[in-house]
Amino acid sequence: MKIVRKIEDVREAVREARKSGKKIGFVPTMGFLHDGHISLVEISKKNAEFQVMSIFVNRLQFNDVNDFNTYPKDLERDFDIAEKGGVDLIFTPDDTEMYRNNLTTVDVDMLTENLCGAHRPGHFKGVFTVVSKLFNIVQPDVAVFGQKDIQQAVSLEKMVADLNFPIKMIIAPIKREIDGLAMSSRNKHLSSEQRSAALSLSRSLKKCEELLKSGVTESSKIIGEMKKVIEEGKPDKIDYISIVDYGTLKDTTVAGDKTVIAVAAYWGTTRLIDNMIAEREGNSLKCV
Amino acid sequence: MKIVRKIEDVREAVREARKSGKKIGFVPTMGFLHDGHISLVEISKKNAEFQVMSIFVNRLQFNDVNDFNTYPKDLERDFDIAEKGGVDLIFTPDDTEMYRNNLTTVDVDMLTENLCGAHRPGHFKGVFTVVSKLFNIVQPDVAVFGQKDIQQAVSLEKMVADLNFPIKMIIAPIKREIDGLAMSSRNKHLSSEQRSAALSLSRSLKKCEELLKSGVTESSKIIGEMKKVIEEGKPDKIDYISIVDYGTLKDTTVAGDKTVIAVAAYWGTTRLIDNMIAEREGNSLKCV
Repeated sequence: MKIVRKIEDVREAVREARKSGKKIGFVPTMGFLHDGHISLVEISKKNAEFQVMSIFVNRLQFNDVNDFNTYPKDLERDFDIAEKGGVDLIFTPDDTEMYRNNLTTVDVDMLTENLCGAHRPGHFKGVFTVVSKLFNIVQPDVAVFGQKDIQQAVSLEKMVADLNFPIKMIIAPIKREIDGLAMSSRNKHLSSEQRSAALSLSRSLKKCEELLKSGVTESSKIIGEMKKVIEEGKPDKIDYISIVDYGTLKDTTVAGDKTVIAVAAYWGTTRLIDNMIAEREGNSLKCV
Repeated sequence: MKIVRKIEDVREAVREARKSGKKIGFVPTMGFLHDGHISLVEISKKNAEFQVMSIFVNRLQFNDVNDFNTYPKDLERDFDIAEKGGVDLIFTPDDTEMYRNNLTTVDVDMLTENLCGAHRPGHFKGVFTVVSKLFNIVQPDVAVFGQKDIQQAVSLEKMVADLNFPIKMIIAPIKREIDGLAMSSRNKHLSSEQRSAALSLSRSLKKCEELLKSGVTESSKIIGEMKKVIEEGKPDKIDYISIVDYGTLKDTTVAGDKTVIAVAAYWGTTRLIDNMIAEREGNSLKCV
């Protein structure tokens, strides 16, 4: 595995790989890797022969400078995990390599008003901008994003379509612990009691799936039932339980052909998110 | 010369050209071609072996729907001029090929507040967005923009740097009529009297060059002298006479190392623009 810090070195390595006929897969990360990240690399491997991973904590997407400064970092461990996971090239630039008096921003209107966007002003604009930059630096054939950050994944998919990036976008299913908890670097902040209470999030999605399969599609009714399930886990706060249209990420009163069901809640100061995509295919309903 | 209307067909043709070892040059236009456009192709030819030109009237960059609807079009004539000019591939998509419920925009902050940006809200955002799309569709090695639209050229140069587009940007010098008038499709709206009066614009830039060469650098003084020259041409209105820093396009009180001198004025309802870049190189001053 090669580790580079300069844009020119990425381009050089990618050019070489492409010359030898390889397709380029790309997984952008902010480091502090866990199995969830490696599951994205696994999917990338199925679609491309040369795996690029970026590790860059992007200050543009932080609302809170303190949150940025204290973002966990362990590059040596990351390199180890990435190499074992089959990454061929790590790109880990410093801030000045990426931003030199940057004046340019990319935005995807409307998709960022709801869900997590509501209390993270500017966050998604920072994501779109850095991902556009990374796409132009790496020039991958395939890019893989996790469904875990569903709003990010859907809006990046829209950005790629709107700006005609010549890239195949793949949204990878959520990687879960054996008991169903969505993997997250935040899970380590949970006490064992909170850890087991937080399972109510994934259980609420299971409940939603059952209701949809039994023909209940009215959002307010489903949300009411999901709320009961989450409350069994006694969260300190439920941030949102939302049923939104996949294409617009706007609240929908009735679950339709392709719908996102997303939840966010706090245990202590730890905010956890989870979601499910429900898609009607003919007469059957697929929930992932 | 090949003419295509579909994004996939551009990609196919560009892929073929690249396979045979050719570099791709790109000149985006809104059609109604004149010698100014062909001068951009000429420069592109010096830097690449396969010339792509887009002809697309981009509604996103029009503030006025009427202005958009009445924008002059003559595709058959354009094809003829482009072919004679050595274009290899014309991409002329319709609106639905380019925009399908577009939600994504690209913006370059600050560079668009002054000069022509002041009274064209949203115009440059529309330009940045469509050029980003065209860059991703054509994937050129080299793109050529005219210095005539200096604000567009400088801010696109900044966009390319900020978003790391792997493209060499070339700003081509203004193509002028023999008497010095900057070429423009708008010149045909001028009466012969207005036509000769409008020469005061390019004369005012000559005046500026003389002043700079004689060591006068104070903007207010230079602007005062330029104003006298333009007023000799009795314009119906002087829109602006601006001396701005090349990197920020903000007004500067003293002409510095790289400075843009830009003018805009009306004769009748025809708005004409012209400009000059003054660059200090060692002890000498280069004005283009």
